[in-house]
Amino acid sequence: MNVLILGGDGYLGWPTAMNLTANGHTVAVVDNYLRRNVCREEDVEPLFDVPNLHERTRLWKETSGYNVQVFIGDLRQWDFVADVFGQFVPDAIIHYAEQPSAPYSMLNRRAATLTLSNNIEVTANVIFAVREFVPEAHIIKIGTMGEYGTPDIDIEEGWLDIEHKGRRSRFLYPRQAGSLYHTTKVMDTDLLWFYVRMWDLRVTDLMQGPVYGLFTDENEKDSRLLPFFNYDELFGTVLNRFIVQAVDGYPLTVYGKGGQTRGYLDIRDTLQCVRLSLENPSKAGELRIFNQFVETFSVNQLAEKVQQVGNQFNLNVEIRSIENPRKEAEDHYYNPVHTGLLELGLKPHYLTDDVISQMLETVIKYKDNIKKTSIFRGVKWK
Amino acid sequence: MNVLILGGDGYLGWPTAMNLTANGHTVAVVDNYLRRNVCREEDVEPLFDVPNLHERTRLWKETSGYNVQVFIGDLRQWDFVADVFGQFVPDAIIHYAEQPSAPYSMLNRRAATLTLSNNIEVTANVIFAVREFVPEAHIIKIGTMGEYGTPDIDIEEGWLDIEHKGRRSRFLYPRQAGSLYHTTKVMDTDLLWFYVRMWDLRVTDLMQGPVYGLFTDENEKDSRLLPFFNYDELFGTVLNRFIVQAVDGYPLTVYGKGGQTRGYLDIRDTLQCVRLSLENPSKAGELRIFNQFVETFSVNQLAEKVQQVGNQFNLNVEIRSIENPRKEAEDHYYNPVHTGLLELGLKPHYLTDDVISQMLETVIKYKDNIKKTSIFRGVKWK
Repeated sequence: MNVLILGGDGYLGWPTAMNLTANGHTVAVVDNYLRRNVCREEDVEPLFDVPNLHERTRLWKETSGYNVQVFIGDLRQWDFVADVFGQFVPDAIIHYAEQPSAPYSMLNRRAATLTLSNNIEVTANVIFAVREFVPEAHIIKIGTMGEYGTPDIDIEEGWLDIEHKGRRSRFLYPRQAGSLYHTTKVMDTDLLWFYVRMWDLRVTDLMQGPVYGLFTDENEKDSRLLPFFNYDELFGTVLNRFIVQAVDGYPLTVYGKGGQTRGYLDIRDTLQCVRLSLENPSKAGELRIFNQFVETFSVNQLAEKVQQVGNQFNLNVEIRSIENPRKEAEDHYYNPVHTGLLELGLKPHYLTDDVISQMLETVIKYKDNIKKTSIFRGVKWK
Repeated sequence: MNVLILGGDGYLGWPTAMNLTANGHTVAVVDNYLRRNVCREEDVEPLFDVPNLHERTRLWKETSGYNVQVFIGDLRQWDFVADVFGQFVPDAIIHYAEQPSAPYSMLNRRAATLTLSNNIEVTANVIFAVREFVPEAHIIKIGTMGEYGTPDIDIEEGWLDIEHKGRRSRFLYPRQAGSLYHTTKVMDTDLLWFYVRMWDLRVTDLMQGPVYGLFTDENEKDSRLLPFFNYDELFGTVLNRFIVQAVDGYPLTVYGKGGQTRGYLDIRDTLQCVRLSLENPSKAGELRIFNQFVETFSVNQLAEKVQQVGNQFNLNVEIRSIENPRKEAEDHYYNPVHTGLLELGLKPHYLTDDVISQMLETVIKYKDNIKKTSIFRGVKWK
C-alpha cells in the first residue's frame, strides 16, 4: 500500500516508516520539524542527536535497501497539503502530526495557541485532502487514552451504549481530558466523527496510552536509526523519564500520591497496532476506535519497577513524591477495555525486567549527555 | 455590570447591547463585520440595510440616551483582544462572535476553514483573556441545541448521569452535531469544560435553538434599530426564511419529509435568557448549561403555521417538499429538557398567529428588496 506518514520525524513516526517499508509498503513521510524546534526553544533536546529526516532515509536505504520519500513542510498550509496528496496519492494516511506534549500545551498562552492551531488545523486539512484527492483512503489517527480521562465507570472501546429513561442509544464514549493537548485530541475526534458521518470517510482512531522503549526490529543493529529519546518533563513519557532519572541519580519524580494509573505499551507494540490497523482497514463510513495499550500501571508501580531493576545496576535509585504540578486525580478507578487490537492479532510485549535493563543499558551509554536542568520544570496546570 | 458583547453587530448581538444598556448595564460591543462581509461575498445580504455599528450606537444614544462603546477588530488577533480587555475590564463577556451558519460551514473548504479557525480561536482567546485580565469574570457562551443532534434518548440539560456495569458517573451529555458549524460549538464546549476544571472559570453555556423574530422592546419604535434579517438559505433561520418565502410567493422549502424537530424561541426570549444568565452568574469552577428554547416544532408544523397565517393575508402560500440537501434524520425522536431558564424566571413568548402576522407585515413592507436568487441555494452536506 502507499502509506503517507504525517509527523514522520517523530518518536513513533520514524520507527513506523522503517517498519512499514520492511513489511512491503511504499512509504512517504511528512514533517516540519515542529517538535525538534520546540525542544530547542525550550532547552529540552533529546538524550542523543538524531539525524535529519533526509539523512535518516539515506541511512535506512543503505542498511535495508528500502526507500522512504520525504516531504518537509507545514501541514497547516493547504498548498503544501495539496502538493503532497497530489504527488504521493496515498491509500492510507497515518496521522501523527500533532504537538504531542501535555505539559508543553499548559506552559503559556503561546504554547497553548500553537498546540490548538497545529493539531486542529492539520486534522482538518487531512480530512479535506482525503475528500478532495483520495476519498477511499484510510485515515489512521493517533488519539490518546487521555481523551477519556479517569471516569468512575469502565472505559469502553470508543463507544458506549446508554440506557436512559427507558430508551437506548449508542454514543461516542463521553470524553473529558486532563490537558489542553489531550483536549485537542478530543476535538480531533469530534471533527473526524462528524465527517465520517457526512462523507463516509474510513477512519481508525487509536486511543493510545503512554509508549516506552527505543528498540524495534529495524533499529536494533544501528543506533543511528533510533528514534528521539526525550527524558525531560515536557516531551519524555513517564517510563523513559524514570529510566534517565535512575541513571542520573535524580530521585524519580512521582507527582503527589502516585496512584495515577494509565495503560502502557512498548514502542514495538505501537508498530504492530498501527500495521494491524493499516492492513485491516475500517469500512467506508466507519469510525473504528481501538484502545491501544497492553498493561496498566500506576506511577508508583512504574517507579518501583525502575528502582528494583536500577538497583541491580547498583544505581541506588531513590523515589521522591513531589507536589503535583498538574491538576488530576492521584487515586482513582481505572478499568479500560482493550480487546479490539488483540482480536486483530496483536502479540503484546510486556514490561519485563529485561526490557527495563535494556533501556537502562542504552541510557547509561549516553549518560554524559543528560542535562539535569532538563529533567524537572514543574509546569503548573493551575 | 460591565458587559462585553463579542459579535455585537450580529442578529442577536445588537439587540442584546440595547437591551442590557436599557436595563442598567455598561456595555461595549466588539465585531469585525465578518458576517456582513461573508453575506456580501455570497450574495445573500439581509432584507434591509442596517447601519454600521458606530452609526447604530449613535442612533441608540439619540433615541435612548444610553452609550455603547464600540471596538472594531478581529478577536482571533491576540493584540486586539488584549487591547479590548485591558481597556474595558468586563465583569461578564457574552460570546456571540462565531460564524453562525451551518450551510455556510458546509459550502466549501475555504468556508469550512474560516468557520473552524474563527470559532475555535476566538473561544480560546476569550478563555486566555479572562485568565490574564479578569479571572473572576463570567463567560456567557452561546452554544446550540444542535450540539446534541437528535439522539434516540431524552436530551438532558447539558449533563447526563450514566450507570454502567454497576457503577455511576456524571458526564457532559454526549454530543453529536449535524454540521461543521455545530461541531465547532461542540469543540468550544470541550475547550470551556477543560479550562473550567483547570482554572476555575465561571461559564454559562446556552444551548440555544433557532431564533425567530425582529422586534424587541428597544427597537419596536425605530426601524433603524432593527437587527439583520436574513432570509437566505445560508444565514436565515427557518421561520424567518418561510415568512419571506410566503411574502414572495416562493413555495416554502421543506427539506425531505419535514419531520426535523427543533426547539425554537422568540428573539425577545433570547434577550431574557441572556440577561437572566448574566444577572445570576455561575460559580467559579462551574460550567452551567441551559437548554435555551421555548417550544418544539417540526419543519412541517412551522410551514403549516406560516401557510395558515399567510393565507389570511391572501398570500396563497404553497408548501413544497424538496430533496434534502443536508444529511440528517427527517423523522426522529426529540424530547429535550428545558427547565433551567424557566426556573431562573424566563417568561416565554410563544409562536402565536399574531407574532407571525407582525413578521409578515414587516416583510411585506420590504417586499421589493427580496432577491429570489438568494432564497434557495441547495448547499449539499454530502
